[in-house]
Amino acid sequence: MGADPTAIVVGLGLPSDVGTGWLDDLTDGFRDECDLVGAGVAGGDTTRCDLVVISVTALGDLGGRAPVTRSGARPGDVVAVAGRLGHAAAGLALLESGHEGLPGPDGRRRDDPRRDDPRRDGRAEPYGSDERREDGVAGLVGAHRRPRPPYPCGPQAAALGATAMLDVSDGLLQDLGHVARASGVGIALDPGAFTVTPEMERVARLLAADPLDWVLTGGEDHALAATFPAEVRLPPAWTVVGRVTGGEGVQVSGRTVGQGGWDHFRM
Amino acid sequence: MGADPTAIVVGLGLPSDVGTGWLDDLTDGFRDECDLVGAGVAGGDTTRCDLVVISVTALGDLGGRAPVTRSGARPGDVVAVAGRLGHAAAGLALLESGHEGLPGPDGRRRDDPRRDDPRRDGRAEPYGSDERREDGVAGLVGAHRRPRPPYPCGPQAAALGATAMLDVSDGLLQDLGHVARASGVGIALDPGAFTVTPEMERVARLLAADPLDWVLTGGEDHALAATFPAEVRLPPAWTVVGRVTGGEGVQVSGRTVGQGGWDHFRM
Repeated sequence: MGADPTAIVVGLGLPSDVGTGWLDDLTDGFRDECDLVGAGVAGGDTTRCDLVVISVTALGDLGGRAPVTRSGARPGDVVAVAGRLGHAAAGLALLESGHEGLPGPDGRRRDDPRRDDPRRDGRAEPYGSDERREDGVAGLVGAHRRPRPPYPCGPQAAALGATAMLDVSDGLLQDLGHVARASGVGIALDPGAFTVTPEMERVARLLAADPLDWVLTGGEDHALAATFPAEVRLPPAWTVVGRVTGGEGVQVSGRTVGQGGWDHFRM
Repeated sequence: MGADPTAIVVGLGLPSDVGTGWLDDLTDGFRDECDLVGAGVAGGDTTRCDLVVISVTALGDLGGRAPVTRSGARPGDVVAVAGRLGHAAAGLALLESGHEGLPGPDGRRRDDPRRDDPRRDGRAEPYGSDERREDGVAGLVGAHRRPRPPYPCGPQAAALGATAMLDVSDGLLQDLGHVARASGVGIALDPGAFTVTPEMERVARLLAADPLDWVLTGGEDHALAATFPAEVRLPPAWTVVGRVTGGEGVQVSGRTVGQGGWDHFRM
């Protein structure tokens, strides 16, 4: 909604036999992720539970600005995305296929399942540095294991005058469907506008998958999608992928994506 | 900490077979409790889970005041409590003993286990009206089933200049131990200052229990405990039950309550 993150509170339900090492790793993860945005763990509560339960509430400060909701998109706006789309879904597909140890472009195998765990370095790296380290195919697995939401792009979009915004957690088509319904508009996407990396192409060939499926329906990258008035000059972090129209629903290349989802419309 | 409640966010983990009636009752409960303080359910998230998991974050507005923490108690302050202490523990003891259907003072049995469920009336009653309805022994069971935290007393205490405050969720002795440690002080309690109702006396006789145990160690009433400078004139909702001293730890009638808890010091 465009707020600057300030704090999280964490509710933890833990079995009595959970290891303290595991718990240290978990709290390190909270700290590292909060450090990326200058937030902190402000409190929370703990209880005993048969399952591990982790409930996080994130708080932010709008600085007096109005929140950017899902309902403000207007015909004529452009639709833009920030952050990665489909990387996490490709990584998950790799993990589920058992191909995780795929040779990299350099021919070296990358067998260590923890290779992409940022905690191996002791500290998370600042936002934006992951592209260098999480290179190639292993980077897709890393994208699934540790999403890299484009945190700064939220307040940036609000400042630029975004008319609607949400994070992509259910998949872009589904989430833009929420915007279309809440705003009473249609959304037309240009599939050629999305970034499909060579690694995604490679993995898609290996798994006989369509990388565009990952981009349009993968939900774990936690990218941002927003609509902006057409005259707004967007910074490089944002990629225009479509436009807001009259009518309703989400269209890809002129074909409406229905309740059955994207599969029915594979091109 | 003295904030005025503004909103809660609710994280729900639910099995797929949870009934919608049950869920309606749960959300009614959130609404009714929020209505007591003019707050609302501002959002949250849902997920599927093998267990029912309910995680609530309550937000409040300090209106620019400093939060009242656990660390501000100073020797010479008085210790006061607001809300009920020991009622819920007595009610739980009754439920666990199987004596729930105990005859009331009027000789009538109160066998309906839902008698004290505020939802039976369709709406919760405003804070403060429960003493009339939750009368007698059945009221103790009701106090366990639905705690009645003295919500208005938190901001009131802050405005009066409370030096430390917390809600009593682990039992008064344990929670005041937190204040003593955080503030680097001792706390001396006068057991004669606490309210033990005739119903608590009756139930205690029936169960061969000491009602003061419930008052000092029962945690589910969600009363408030605070320390105030001695010169503060406290309104009737607050009862002075002790004072802040030099030294450390919590004393009852001059005997220190140790790590082993209250049981070792029963009088």
